[in-house]
Amino acid sequence: MRYPDHLLKLIDVLKKLPGVGSKSAERFAFHLLNSKPDQLTEMAKTIQEIPNQLQLCEECGCLADTKNCYFCDELRSSYGFLCIIASPKDAYAIENTGEYKGLYQVLGSLLSPMCGIGPENLKIDKLKMRIAKFNIQEVVIALDSTLEGDATSLYLKEEFSCLPINISRLAFGLPMGHSLDYVDGGTLARAFSGRSTF
Amino acid sequence: MRYPDHLLKLIDVLKKLPGVGSKSAERFAFHLLNSKPDQLTEMAKTIQEIPNQLQLCEECGCLADTKNCYFCDELRSSYGFLCIIASPKDAYAIENTGEYKGLYQVLGSLLSPMCGIGPENLKIDKLKMRIAKFNIQEVVIALDSTLEGDATSLYLKEEFSCLPINISRLAFGLPMGHSLDYVDGGTLARAFSGRSTF
Repeated sequence: MRYPDHLLKLIDVLKKLPGVGSKSAERFAFHLLNSKPDQLTEMAKTIQEIPNQLQLCEECGCLADTKNCYFCDELRSSYGFLCIIASPKDAYAIENTGEYKGLYQVLGSLLSPMCGIGPENLKIDKLKMRIAKFNIQEVVIALDSTLEGDATSLYLKEEFSCLPINISRLAFGLPMGHSLDYVDGGTLARAFSGRSTF
Repeated sequence: MRYPDHLLKLIDVLKKLPGVGSKSAERFAFHLLNSKPDQLTEMAKTIQEIPNQLQLCEECGCLADTKNCYFCDELRSSYGFLCIIASPKDAYAIENTGEYKGLYQVLGSLLSPMCGIGPENLKIDKLKMRIAKFNIQEVVIALDSTLEGDATSLYLKEEFSCLPINISRLAFGLPMGHSLDYVDGGTLARAFSGRSTF
């Protein structure tokens, strides 16, 4: 006994969302079935409008809803800092800390030979071009603390080693509010080796 | 630092899916941002088309993609069985067991005084009408084994006690392939009280 064709198509479409498998997609689909037509129209319209309403800034790769990118203003360019992030989302997280004032550059992806993503997929030329253009003094690498993030960071460090700039990477250590009991060995080891005078 | 307006709207719309909180909705939204326009169009169209492509059968409440409901054919009506389910989804799960041949009736919801769902929200009149119309001999209650499912089943039993029909409910016991170690006390108690000669 198969579901009706349109329901199968709906489940298929919803399964493309990250972390959504068959069971969750079915749950979403049956929820949508019980929604009012105007709610469905609103949802469809919001999704359809994404390419028109939300663009990635051609300069830095961050999200821009108007033609002027919030992350590319003149004041930011004057500080001489460039922060390298993997996705446009990270810029918001960093902005909200209030710790950083400077330019951003979205890398688009992290190195991952398993997924066929090599150095040619990273926007290295754009990066070098911007480092020269804005007279950047320090590049802050703010990538994930994963295997892919580590590999990409090392690659960037090598790539920029010939340039007269400082290269830094976010600190590794204990997350705030965590008990030592629940921190994994790798994190603890890095927190130890990175200890500072108190 | 706020997300762009359209992104906030998108997150808001996605948060309405069941079990999706702010974090998951953000993840979905950023995934959609990176999707190709034609994929977004397909998704939007599939959602928009739900009310046209998928209707609930006026007779039994099950899903129907054409005008003739698969669950309401003449052969099924002739067996004298009516299975009461909470949602159209359950009909597919029961059909796929191959254990039941008969009519279905979707109840629409389960009794839940906490959510303001009382007996007037259940389709009791429709049920009684169909029991008479199809000369039903046995009503099989196939509702969740939750507090709401139990309350609704008891209510239906009371409601139909005056009719000359058999009322049955799905068996409770050990799920297939489970170890006794991992079965909760309530299930084990019900499996004991419902034990049968082996």
